[in-house]
Amino acid sequence: MANISDCKKCSVHFEPDNIDIVVDEGANLMETAVAAGVHINASCGGAGVCGTCNVFVKSGQVKSAKTNKVSDRDYKKGIRQSCQSSVLSDLTIEIPVESRLEKAVLARETGDITAQTQAALVSGWRFDPPLKKLYLELTAPTLEDNISDLSRLLRGIKQQYKIDNISIDFEFLSKLAQELRSDNWQVTATILLEDNSSYKIINIEPGDTRNKHYSFAFDIGTTAVRGQLLDLNRGSILAHAIDYNRQISYGEDVISRIAWSQKTGGLKRLQQAVIATINDLIVELTDSAGIESKDISHIVVAANTVMVQLLLAVDPGYLRLSPYVPTFSTAPLLKAKSIGINAGEHVHLYIVPSVASYVGGDIVSGILGAGVHQVDNSTLYIDIGTNGEIVIGNSDLMLTTSCSAGPTFEGGGIKHGMIATPGAIEGFDINPPDFEPVISTIDNVKAKGICGSGLINIVATLLKAGFITQNGKFNADLPTKRIRKGEDGYEYVLLPASDTQIGKDIVITEIDIDNLIRSKAAMYAGYKTLIKSIDSKFTDIERVIIAGTFGSNINIENAITIGLLPDLPRDRYIFIGNGSLLGARLISFSSDLLHEGERVAAMMTNIELSENADFMSNYMAALFLPHTNADEFPSVIIKKG
Amino acid sequence: MANISDCKKCSVHFEPDNIDIVVDEGANLMETAVAAGVHINASCGGAGVCGTCNVFVKSGQVKSAKTNKVSDRDYKKGIRQSCQSSVLSDLTIEIPVESRLEKAVLARETGDITAQTQAALVSGWRFDPPLKKLYLELTAPTLEDNISDLSRLLRGIKQQYKIDNISIDFEFLSKLAQELRSDNWQVTATILLEDNSSYKIINIEPGDTRNKHYSFAFDIGTTAVRGQLLDLNRGSILAHAIDYNRQISYGEDVISRIAWSQKTGGLKRLQQAVIATINDLIVELTDSAGIESKDISHIVVAANTVMVQLLLAVDPGYLRLSPYVPTFSTAPLLKAKSIGINAGEHVHLYIVPSVASYVGGDIVSGILGAGVHQVDNSTLYIDIGTNGEIVIGNSDLMLTTSCSAGPTFEGGGIKHGMIATPGAIEGFDINPPDFEPVISTIDNVKAKGICGSGLINIVATLLKAGFITQNGKFNADLPTKRIRKGEDGYEYVLLPASDTQIGKDIVITEIDIDNLIRSKAAMYAGYKTLIKSIDSKFTDIERVIIAGTFGSNINIENAITIGLLPDLPRDRYIFIGNGSLLGARLISFSSDLLHEGERVAAMMTNIELSENADFMSNYMAALFLPHTNADEFPSVIIKKG
Repeated sequence: MANISDCKKCSVHFEPDNIDIVVDEGANLMETAVAAGVHINASCGGAGVCGTCNVFVKSGQVKSAKTNKVSDRDYKKGIRQSCQSSVLSDLTIEIPVESRLEKAVLARETGDITAQTQAALVSGWRFDPPLKKLYLELTAPTLEDNISDLSRLLRGIKQQYKIDNISIDFEFLSKLAQELRSDNWQVTATILLEDNSSYKIINIEPGDTRNKHYSFAFDIGTTAVRGQLLDLNRGSILAHAIDYNRQISYGEDVISRIAWSQKTGGLKRLQQAVIATINDLIVELTDSAGIESKDISHIVVAANTVMVQLLLAVDPGYLRLSPYVPTFSTAPLLKAKSIGINAGEHVHLYIVPSVASYVGGDIVSGILGAGVHQVDNSTLYIDIGTNGEIVIGNSDLMLTTSCSAGPTFEGGGIKHGMIATPGAIEGFDINPPDFEPVISTIDNVKAKGICGSGLINIVATLLKAGFITQNGKFNADLPTKRIRKGEDGYEYVLLPASDTQIGKDIVITEIDIDNLIRSKAAMYAGYKTLIKSIDSKFTDIERVIIAGTFGSNINIENAITIGLLPDLPRDRYIFIGNGSLLGARLISFSSDLLHEGERVAAMMTNIELSENADFMSNYMAALFLPHTNADEFPSVIIKKG
Repeated sequence: MANISDCKKCSVHFEPDNIDIVVDEGANLMETAVAAGVHINASCGGAGVCGTCNVFVKSGQVKSAKTNKVSDRDYKKGIRQSCQSSVLSDLTIEIPVESRLEKAVLARETGDITAQTQAALVSGWRFDPPLKKLYLELTAPTLEDNISDLSRLLRGIKQQYKIDNISIDFEFLSKLAQELRSDNWQVTATILLEDNSSYKIINIEPGDTRNKHYSFAFDIGTTAVRGQLLDLNRGSILAHAIDYNRQISYGEDVISRIAWSQKTGGLKRLQQAVIATINDLIVELTDSAGIESKDISHIVVAANTVMVQLLLAVDPGYLRLSPYVPTFSTAPLLKAKSIGINAGEHVHLYIVPSVASYVGGDIVSGILGAGVHQVDNSTLYIDIGTNGEIVIGNSDLMLTTSCSAGPTFEGGGIKHGMIATPGAIEGFDINPPDFEPVISTIDNVKAKGICGSGLINIVATLLKAGFITQNGKFNADLPTKRIRKGEDGYEYVLLPASDTQIGKDIVITEIDIDNLIRSKAAMYAGYKTLIKSIDSKFTDIERVIIAGTFGSNINIENAITIGLLPDLPRDRYIFIGNGSLLGARLISFSSDLLHEGERVAAMMTNIELSENADFMSNYMAALFLPHTNADEFPSVIIKKG
């Protein structure tokens, strides 16, 4: 790094990644890590309130206030809250295991859906990609027929493919003359469906290149970005790839991201972070499929509204202010390169339209993929996450809402919470003889913490066994040492320090249970309010579609036991995995579905819950396990203390 | 200039501009001048064949072969052909008066057309600019009405202006939220007519900005670029500006430009040269009208096909190769900024469509402006220039062609030829008593050379007086010392060296006359071939429209005398000046005319003359003054020797 200022320079070494960076004295430690490409969990985006970005200062000096997010013991060891620390000297910093992101596990999210699920999905669509390759054998110009190259091309397309009223992209004109002549007037034109149902010529190549006809579908999630490389001749998936959205260093939820975007230069940095993620995935996808990137000509993106606005560097500030207005719901087609995506000059980006501030193109994609708009059956569509999205409806009517469940399901706000990566406690049971727990972790490695699905399993199991009361308190009278009084009140010890990777007892506290109750109550109140708004009731629901990675990994019985999901016959539940990516892929394969997606977005009516009185009373009634009204959960049997 | 190589550096000082530049030893002297922004005439684009780029080396060393374009006497004085010279040391270079471009005189080209002319022009069009400003008073969003900002804007436009099916520009989304809110949901949207007759929102401004609604119209000529700043509320011209097309340093005619474009980096340099010209004119136009450039939102350009392709950096190479095919005839709307024009992010460029390789949007503009497509009367439209363009037709049928007249009319290929700038001999007469000439120059300054219209006047007058025979030879038997034998055969002395700025006798030679005869024969053969192709004859022509600056400055009697124009009743001639700029302005004012321009371009049929046998025989027959067939010029009386 060139020495361009008089500031003292400090060299910072990060372990275990072994990455070095030189920064000015006084630089913020978390931002230094971000600049170096070292990921640190930071749920709150560096606001100092979440306590997930702690690091171990192995050598050197930092300036860091002692906050309540670092215990006295940890502080003495050298643990510091990185977002509250500044660099004073050359440093060696270790990112402890609980602050690290691990990519490997995201892989468990890309599993294919089952045949049973497939049958429940959208049907009757034509394979007819919005991106087409047209092979043309044109006649060479003569003195009698010397119309312009472009007119000749358009005439050929009209004659051979009956496609008229076609527009063209300025950029491709510069190479048109050469490309037409380099293989004796045999060319392949790439055309793309435009907003107004006409086509636009976006590229031209000499000869017949129809056999190289590919595109990308991306789901840009708040946490992870998932991509697929698609073969547009065969309608097949050639490669999957997944990675954390690099924006995660700026906060785990959309609200933190919005807050970050309001800082000077923040919007641009968030855009660059997600574009960098996409560019890395593009390399991974093309490498693993052995496809040249020049042969990829289209990108379909589905994402929530905040992710879309950040992708385009459109200020998302108004999304979090009442009355919660997005800048746009339908984005114009745009050049991928214009926002920094490493794609050919001709590649356009189609963004699945959204409905409202917190009901994005990801949900529209899922509804489209699940075919909710095609059937008369009343369907409840649920995507559980930090931001819970809910749709109720059928081919006639569709209502949608979103409710802020908080980060609980991703491990946020939970003392030992973590996202679902290796070492997260997920499986939990207790044996009748001694009521000792049987615990399993993802990938069966030593435990680091508890993931969202694990938390549901733990609370449901402890509830049914009478360890927890229906209002979420521990039964301290039970003859077990696992329930004890800790720093935050009563807690249940899942594992002693010696059995963990983190060298601390892993516990679940009453505060954790309280957070879970509030999160599940928000979701449940969401469904209930939405259903009531169409004068319907839970038992009228004929299908419940659970979308999203988290949803696909929960135990349905336990989710019903705690009141997260309604107590309906279990065979009405269908799990479709990542609905957002499913829809993006289907749109890449079918112009019909592209138009249907636009129709679905337009037919959805958003119900704003944030100031809805019905929602508030439904929420209060659901702050109980499973619910204050036991009649709503007839199949849930709780052992009374 | 940073010393980035080991080459010896030489400092070159140019007079009379007093501009200095440092270049590597060995640099080409003409290119050095171009790089320094010093204009030198160079008809052939530096090929070394025209001899118009001579300079005087006042001090220092150049390496320069003695060519036949520099006389022995001039060579001894220090005159060198700059395109054939390389820099060997620090230099002081003077650009002699005959090699300089002078901008001031171009001003004579922007005069307004007369009322009589106006009456002959296109009629019945609606004032309805393709660029519109819509003022909107939107309702602020509420929880009950929280559609996206963009949907709110589109809804407002639909409700208040009944405009539906509107597309949007990606770039403006980034500021939409802020602009809508900064003046309490009162905004002005700027919309632009698109290719497919729908509109596109290109800009949004807070408050009511309808009173600031401007655009530019440009005619990009091979020699000069003319611009106007237009008021789109009043349909008026607020400012005119004109300057040489900076491409002139790369050759005076389109063929030299095409040759230059084929060199490495040449296409880009030619684009930059014309864009730099446009950008300077933009400053001049906005300054002189006192308009802020941000309030200008549209640009309409009319130009010949080569100029359009160079403007967009689209290789014009195929335009000069049989079968003479342009890359496109209709260009897509494009962002002005994308090609380097200093305009707002939202400003689009509309390029008037062309017909064929050498029949460009400049002619379509002129035909549109003259309303040729509206009347039943048979009209002949002529634009005389290096490239002569001819149209014959009416509302039913329109045929067009172009013929290469050569640079004669711009002073090219003429021993003392020059473009029509101050000091050019234009007026010429001879007095009966002693047959001595009466000569006048543009701006009445000492003569520097002869311009195209002057050449016509001289040859016509000498022909009628019997000084020149009908086959273009001097009558050497006449008792006058003005006819003498010179280096190039017989010549007529117009002015002795002492009465000129150049210190040399200004003469007209038999070679000059021969060049003029060939140029006028090409034009005349062009009209004749075109007229015959529709089984018509000259006397059927009811109107002859003469477009272009050169045409507007010729003496019609003299032009008929030499056979450049057909011998028709003089009241059938109408002079419209710059038809290209006229059409570009009218298109800026009327969507109807924009569509009509597209229709006109589509209805024109191009006749390729370059390999046409009829044209060749008509051309041969016209190589006489005025013509081998005297019956075609009954009103021309020649004094026989």
